[in-house]
Order: sequence, then C-alpha cells, then structure tokens
Amino acid sequence: MAEKKIVLTGDRPTGPLHLGHFVGSLKQRIALQESCTQYVEIADVQALTDNFEHPQKVHQNVLEIALDYLAVGIDPKKSTIFIQSTVPQIAELAIFYLNLVTVNRLKRNPTVKTEITLRSFGERLPAGFLIYPVHQAADITIVKASLVPVGEDQYPMIEQTNEIVRSFNRIYQTSVLVEAEAVKSTTPRLPGIDGKGKMSKSLGNAIFLSDSSDEVARKVMAMYTDPDHIHVQDPGKIEGNVVFSYLDIFDPDKDEVANLKEHYQRGGLGDVVLKKRLIEILESFLTPIRTRRAEFARDPSIIVDLLHKGGDIVREVASHTMAQVRTAMHLDY
Amino acid sequence: MAEKKIVLTGDRPTGPLHLGHFVGSLKQRIALQESCTQYVEIADVQALTDNFEHPQKVHQNVLEIALDYLAVGIDPKKSTIFIQSTVPQIAELAIFYLNLVTVNRLKRNPTVKTEITLRSFGERLPAGFLIYPVHQAADITIVKASLVPVGEDQYPMIEQTNEIVRSFNRIYQTSVLVEAEAVKSTTPRLPGIDGKGKMSKSLGNAIFLSDSSDEVARKVMAMYTDPDHIHVQDPGKIEGNVVFSYLDIFDPDKDEVANLKEHYQRGGLGDVVLKKRLIEILESFLTPIRTRRAEFARDPSIIVDLLHKGGDIVREVASHTMAQVRTAMHLDY
Repeated sequence: MAEKKIVLTGDRPTGPLHLGHFVGSLKQRIALQESCTQYVEIADVQALTDNFEHPQKVHQNVLEIALDYLAVGIDPKKSTIFIQSTVPQIAELAIFYLNLVTVNRLKRNPTVKTEITLRSFGERLPAGFLIYPVHQAADITIVKASLVPVGEDQYPMIEQTNEIVRSFNRIYQTSVLVEAEAVKSTTPRLPGIDGKGKMSKSLGNAIFLSDSSDEVARKVMAMYTDPDHIHVQDPGKIEGNVVFSYLDIFDPDKDEVANLKEHYQRGGLGDVVLKKRLIEILESFLTPIRTRRAEFARDPSIIVDLLHKGGDIVREVASHTMAQVRTAMHLDY
Repeated sequence: MAEKKIVLTGDRPTGPLHLGHFVGSLKQRIALQESCTQYVEIADVQALTDNFEHPQKVHQNVLEIALDYLAVGIDPKKSTIFIQSTVPQIAELAIFYLNLVTVNRLKRNPTVKTEITLRSFGERLPAGFLIYPVHQAADITIVKASLVPVGEDQYPMIEQTNEIVRSFNRIYQTSVLVEAEAVKSTTPRLPGIDGKGKMSKSLGNAIFLSDSSDEVARKVMAMYTDPDHIHVQDPGKIEGNVVFSYLDIFDPDKDEVANLKEHYQRGGLGDVVLKKRLIEILESFLTPIRTRRAEFARDPSIIVDLLHKGGDIVREVASHTMAQVRTAMHLDY
C-alpha cells in the first residue's frame, strides 16, 4: 500500500470564511481528507504579523474559523485541525530557516510585495511581516507536507519554501526536509457580489458560510448582473454577470444553466427569476453547513478539545521532525 | 529579604574564551553569581546566524566554552549554564517580538550595522543575522533578567530589548516583561598582544584561557611594547605598551607596577624583565583555571549533564514566562 500523501493547509484567523474560501480551498480540503493525511492550520501567529495590535480579534476568529471548518465538512476524524501557536516547534524551525534566506530575497517575494503595498506599511514594515514566508515554510515542512492547496497568488510562497528545503538539505547534508507542491484549484475564482474583483471580507462583497437565509437572499438580490439589462425582454450579457458566475459553480444542473444563459442572452429572462434560482441553490448548499454549525456551536468546549487534540498530534509530528533537524544541524548535545 | 536580581549573560560558541573575555565579562559573572540568580547562555542559535554553514564548529565550541566557564570559576551550583537551542521558548517569543520591530529599526542598530560591514555580507545578508537583536531580546526577557553584563558595543542591544519590552507591555496591556539594565565592565578593555586593538580570536592576538604555559610565555614574549625602546638604558613609553596594560589589570601589586612604570620611563628596565614578570603573574592567574579544567575534562559527560540540567531549569522558567505572554496576547485557548 502506498503511503498517504501529507497535506498542509489553513487560514489566517482574521474573519469568517466565505463562499470564495469554499471555492478556492475548502472544497479541495474536503476532497483531500479522503485520500491524504491532512493538517489544517489556524495560523494565529501569522495573523498577528499584521494584527499584532488586535489580539482579541485574532483570538475570537480562531474559534470562529474552527467552527467554519467543522460546519463546511472538514471532518476532525479525517483531518487534523490545529492552532499554529500551540506548536512551538514551528517558531524554532523558522528561526533556523531565517539564516538560509537573505533580506533581499524576502523583499523580492511578489506576494509579500503586493501585501506590503496593500497594507501601506511604508517605513513601518514590521520584521514579522517581512519574514512570514519563512514562518510559513516552517509550517509546511514541520509536518513534511508534500501537497499545499493554494491560490495562484500563493505560488511564490511554495517557491520560497522549496528554496529553503533545498538549501537546508544541501548545507546540512540531509534529506530530512521534503519539497512541497502547490495543489491548484480547478474552479475559477469566485467574484464578489459587486462583480468588482475577488470575494473578500475587507471589500464588503462576500457571502459568508455563516450568513443567515435572509442575508444570503439580500446579498444575491443585490448582485451585479448586466446594467444594460433593463427590461425583461432585453437581451442580457453573461460576461461579468455575477449571478451566472455563481450558477456555473454552484448549480449542479449544468444543462439548465446552459439553457438559462441562452434564454438570458436572447432576452425574456428577468434578473429576479435568475436570482431566485441562485438563492435556492445557495440555500441547498448552505443548509447542511448550517445544520452542522448549529450542532457544533451547541457545545464550544468540544471544539476547543478538538483543537487541543489536534495540537497534540502536530506537536508529536513536529518534535519528530525537529529531532531530525537537530541531528542534521549538529544541535544534539 | 530582598529578592535576588536576575542576570542573563553568555557567549556565542564560535571559539575558545580568552583573557579579553575574562576582563570584559567572565570576571563580572564570577562576582554576580554570588548575589544574583545568574543564567549563563551558550548562544548556539545566534552563533549559527553567521556560521550556519559550519554547524560542527558551533557544536564543538559549545562544549569547549562550557569547559572554559567551569574552568574560570563559573560555579554550576551558583549559576545556571545552558545551551540556547535547548530552550525552544526563546524562538517562540522572538517570533512574537518580530511584529513589534520594524525592518528599518533593525537596519539602524549600530552594533548590527558594524557587524554587517565587518562580515561583508553585501547583498547576501541573512535575515537571521539582521533580526538577531530581537532574538537576543527574547533571551534576556524570557528569564526576566534585569541585569545584563555587556561591553559598550552591546548597549544598542539592551536599548532594542527595552524598546520591545515597552511596546509589548503597552500593546498587550501587561507588565509581564521586565526592562534590563546593562552592567558595565569597570576594567578597561584588554588589548590584543599586538597592541593593535581589542583581543580577538579572529585577529590572532589572543591569549586563551586554555593556553598552555609554553603558549602563554611565547605570546607574552611576542607582545608589543615600545618599538623605540631598543637598549635597556633607553627611556621607554608606557602608553600603548601592552605589557603594562596587562600588568595594570592582572598584577595584584599595584605599588610595584607603579615603580616599574617609573623605572621603565626613566630607562634601565628591559622588556624581557618586564615580560618575565607578566608571565609569572599570568601563570599564577591561569594555574587554578587549568587545574579546574583538567578536573572537568576528565569526564565530559558531567559537563553534558550539567548543560542538560541547566536547560531543564531555564525551560521551566521560560514556560512560566510564556504562559504569561500567551495570556497577555490572548493566545490562551
């Protein structure tokens, strides 16, 4: 029997998860947990790199995001969910990795460059933020993950990780560390309800996994369609029409979606009819998620226990990796 | 009874300790261990920041430096000697501190600036080297040290540490962290035997605590004196004369040193006579050190045990500090 592949995935606990997260990564995780050994990390230490002045926010979101995971179908019997800060070995390994990466290399990381601009740190760039790709390399390698499901914007992170892996293995003449591969999402990126870009909490255009039926209906009714489609009988545009983007992804009846598109383009199909269909489809998608959420939310101590157990498991794996790292680095006294 | 003050001190294990170390810091530590709770750290993690390609060298020097400590009179019953890499909490704390320090602030650190130039890293400055003052702040604060015996060139390190302490306590509304004070050496800095600057292994001008009698004699005989003092009867210069610098520090008979200076300046006192006196004085200083070294060297497993026990003690203190840090940072789940 072939050994199971190891997956490391996770999120920064800075806000509730939304449909964009589902499409971009949660869906893959639900699939990967069936065939792989999957570690799902709630990256609170990394969330602090740009939220260090708001630790309560991070704390609260750790528990919220755990609930999101469980609700969406990440199964604690199949995946190990854990909180990053409960695994001190990640910090230990990151400190060793910092010697293998130049300051200039960190500054050239395209993802970090974009994020730095976005956050307008200017002259006040925290060292913790600059080095977070190195910390992330420690996340991935401490559990020896070979698969990391990420969006395209995160590829430079995997590249940085593998550079470190190769340097480490070469310098310390070992094969302890494992290179990782990005698992690409096969689903196109989900636009926000405003159609202006990707779904994002900070842009205020997200439908959250925890939204109520009323909120979902309200957001779908406000969705961007075709601004020139004024009368029902007018021909409408499909391109950039958010309702169709969602139907493409969430509607299981692909033939019917094709019919609707044809009808819409021909004219005679109103936005409201379409939106009502989407509301129904999202409702049937979200209903089991809400049911599981309500079950887990009944006793939050179960979630905390589960995260603690996850931490125990990862610490054990991590301490095994660190023992090998120490030996390779001649740090075994 | 007033509580004992806590001292954190230590060295990077990159070479054997020499008389310059004794004068600059070991002497103070031997005194401080009588009145304070003293932690003496062998900073292997920091040694790796500019020796990451030479881990064997660091490993070997860890044990050598421990032997130097014991030989010179750091008493394991009074001081806790430990290896930095055996205390993972230091890395954990350093990662949190990195959020509180900007990259620009790190680049402005005068000590690091000098060291970067010295090592000619150029474009290849490792991130680990740039951030080492933050790691050092974690060393100091994890044991809540209020006293740190350092040379003048290390003052910026204490300043950086205290900036972090103040930021942390302010942001996380706590008083967990303690500011540290530099303990200045009262003895003037010891020049190298070549008189060209401070004693340093890399300059090849050092007398090591582990040097044999022959080596000490050879080095003293090669000491820089007054190049214009050619004949015994010539008047000689005291300033810049290394032999007198050493006599000032190591010769217990201050009156006799004053007489010798007067005689030397007047003329009629040969370098060889002076040097022979210094050899005798250094021999009586080094003899008990050699005796203790021989005792400890007989069974290196005792030293390893001692370092392990030191690690146990510091890990316990550190985990107490980290529990408080976690609470302050809302990382207690």
